[in-house]
Amino acid sequence: MRIALDAMGTDDAPVAEVAGAVEALKDTDGDLEILLVGDQDAVEAELARHPDAPRDRVRVVHAPERVLPDESPAKALRRKPNSSIAIGLGLHRDGQADAFISAGSTGAVMAGSLFILRPLAGVDRPPIGTVIPTARGPLLMLDAGANVDCKPHQLVQFAQLGKVYAQDLMGIPDPRIGLLNIGEEPGKGDERSVETHQLLAAQTDLNFVGNVEGRAIIQGVCDVLVCDGFAGNVLLKFYESVASFIVGLLKPALGDELLHKPDVERIFRLLDYTETGGAPLLGVHGITIICHGGSPPKAIRNAIRVAAQAVRSSLVSHFERELAPQQTPALDDA
Amino acid sequence: MRIALDAMGTDDAPVAEVAGAVEALKDTDGDLEILLVGDQDAVEAELARHPDAPRDRVRVVHAPERVLPDESPAKALRRKPNSSIAIGLGLHRDGQADAFISAGSTGAVMAGSLFILRPLAGVDRPPIGTVIPTARGPLLMLDAGANVDCKPHQLVQFAQLGKVYAQDLMGIPDPRIGLLNIGEEPGKGDERSVETHQLLAAQTDLNFVGNVEGRAIIQGVCDVLVCDGFAGNVLLKFYESVASFIVGLLKPALGDELLHKPDVERIFRLLDYTETGGAPLLGVHGITIICHGGSPPKAIRNAIRVAAQAVRSSLVSHFERELAPQQTPALDDA
Repeated sequence: MRIALDAMGTDDAPVAEVAGAVEALKDTDGDLEILLVGDQDAVEAELARHPDAPRDRVRVVHAPERVLPDESPAKALRRKPNSSIAIGLGLHRDGQADAFISAGSTGAVMAGSLFILRPLAGVDRPPIGTVIPTARGPLLMLDAGANVDCKPHQLVQFAQLGKVYAQDLMGIPDPRIGLLNIGEEPGKGDERSVETHQLLAAQTDLNFVGNVEGRAIIQGVCDVLVCDGFAGNVLLKFYESVASFIVGLLKPALGDELLHKPDVERIFRLLDYTETGGAPLLGVHGITIICHGGSPPKAIRNAIRVAAQAVRSSLVSHFERELAPQQTPALDDA
Repeated sequence: MRIALDAMGTDDAPVAEVAGAVEALKDTDGDLEILLVGDQDAVEAELARHPDAPRDRVRVVHAPERVLPDESPAKALRRKPNSSIAIGLGLHRDGQADAFISAGSTGAVMAGSLFILRPLAGVDRPPIGTVIPTARGPLLMLDAGANVDCKPHQLVQFAQLGKVYAQDLMGIPDPRIGLLNIGEEPGKGDERSVETHQLLAAQTDLNFVGNVEGRAIIQGVCDVLVCDGFAGNVLLKFYESVASFIVGLLKPALGDELLHKPDVERIFRLLDYTETGGAPLLGVHGITIICHGGSPPKAIRNAIRVAAQAVRSSLVSHFERELAPQQTPALDDA
C-alpha cells in the first residue's frame, strides 16, 4: 500500500509531516510505503534528520508550489497545478497512491478532491467526517464543515456514508444513526430537520435512532451524527476549544504530580484531538484525510493509520455498494 | 419590587422554588417581595418547612393548574387558563408583579410571554438569551433556542436586544457583538450568515466585531454572540453536557481532597450552569426568566437576583429606546 502525504501542509511543514511519516513507517511491518509530496530540497533535508527512517519505503515527490492558508481554494488549485495538494491528489487519482493526506488548506484539499477525484455517484456534496470522543466511545459526526445550506436528501447521503465508515473504520456492525436537532420529537427543529427526520425514518436500511439533542451527543446515544456543515463545524470547533479550555483551567490547580497520574493522563488523552487522526472527506473516488494545520507528528501518524485502514477495508467500494439504487428483487428470486 | 415566581415549574416543585425564594428574600434588605404562584396547599405546606422565611414579604397566589412538560405549549395555555404560568404572567402584565420567573415548560413560558406580555415594537421573534462562561468572563448568547429559521433582520434585532442586556445586566458599556459563523471572513458561512454579516456591519450603533467561530467562543472574543436558535440551542446544551462530562471524568481520578481545593472548586463552579441564574426571554413587554426544570434552590435564587436587577435597571425601556427607529435630527437641532 502506498499513501501520498502532503509534506507542506502543517504550520511548521515539513517537520511534522516527515516525523509523522517516519513514525508510521516504523509502526508497520513493511507493506506501507509513503510518498512525501512537497519541495524536494526541504523534504530531503528534513528526512536527513531522521537517520532511522526506513528509506526504502519513503520517497519524495517534488511539488514546487504550495497552497497558502488564505488563498481562495478554487483559484489556488487552478493557478498552482504543481502544488503539493494537486500533485498528491493526482498521484492518488492515477493509482500511484492509494490515499492522500494533507494538513494544508482544508478548502483546497476539499475542492481538489472534488475536482480531481470526483464525487461518487449518489453523493451530491461529499461531507467531512470527524470522530469525537463520548462517554460511550467514539462518535462520527458529519458534515463537520464541508457543506452549508444542505438539503434533506443530502443529509440522508451523509447518513449512508457515515454508516459505512462506522462499519469499516470503527468496527460497528449496525451503527446507530442520529440526526442533530433541538428536540427529540420528530416534528421538532427547523424546516430542514423536520423533513430530514422523515426521510431518514423512511430508510429501512438505516438504523435511525431519531433526533439527538446537543446534550445527548456526549452521552454517545448514537454512533453517527448527521448534521449540516454549519452546526457540525461550530460544534466541532467548540468541542476542541472547550475541552482544552477546561483542561487548561484545571492544570495549574492540579499540579504536576497529579497531572501525570495514569487516570488523569488517560482522560486528557481522550480529549486530545491529535489522537483521532484527521478527518476523512467521504464520498469521493478515493481516500482523502484532512488534518489540522497545527498537527503534531502524532496526529500525522494517526492519520496515516486511519488512511491505511480505509484502504485495507475497501471503504470506497463499500460506499458504492451502499449508495447503489436498491434493486427490487424479481418475483422468481424469492 | 415584586417578583412572581412559578412555584410549580421544577421537577420537584414546589421544593426548589420555595427554598430558592426564601434564600433570595434573606439575601435582600427588604425591598423585594415574592409571589409564589401555584397550588396553594402544596406551596403553603412547603413554606411551613421554612420557619425562617420572612412571611411579610412572601405571598402565595393560588393557581390550580399546571402545564406538564410534554403538553403542546399553545394548547396547554388555552386549555389551562389557571395554570401557574398563565396566572403568573397575568400578574406581571397587570402590574401586580414586576417580573416573572418559571422553571416549567420552556415552550409554554415562551408562548405565554408572547401571548400575554406581547413582543416589543421592532421585535419579530423574542429570543432567549443565555450567559455562558468564557476565558474572559461571561458571554451572552442569543437566540438559545426560542426561534429557528430566523431571517437576517431578526438576527440584527437579537444583536440590539443583546447589546442592551449586556449593558444593563453585565455592566459592559459598549458590548462587542459577534456573529456565530464557520469562518472569520465576511463572505463565509451559509446564506443567512453572509447576509446577516452585511446587515450587522452596516449598523453604526452596534460594536460589531465580525464572525466568531466555534473555537473563539470560549476565548471570549465577544460579549454578545448572535445566532439562530438552532445552532444556539445545540451549542448551549452541548456546553452544559460537555463541561459536566469532563468534570465527571476527572472527579474519580482526582480524589476527594483535591476536589475541595479552592482553585478546583472555583473552576467547577465556573462551569456550573446553576450559578448563572436562568435565561431571559428578551424583547417582550416585561421581564421573563426561564430556568432549567432541574434547577436547585441556588439556581432559583440566582434567577430572582437577575430578575430584580433587570427591573432596577429599567431593561425594558432601554430595549424600547434601542429599538426605536433612529430619528434624523432636524437641522435646527444642530
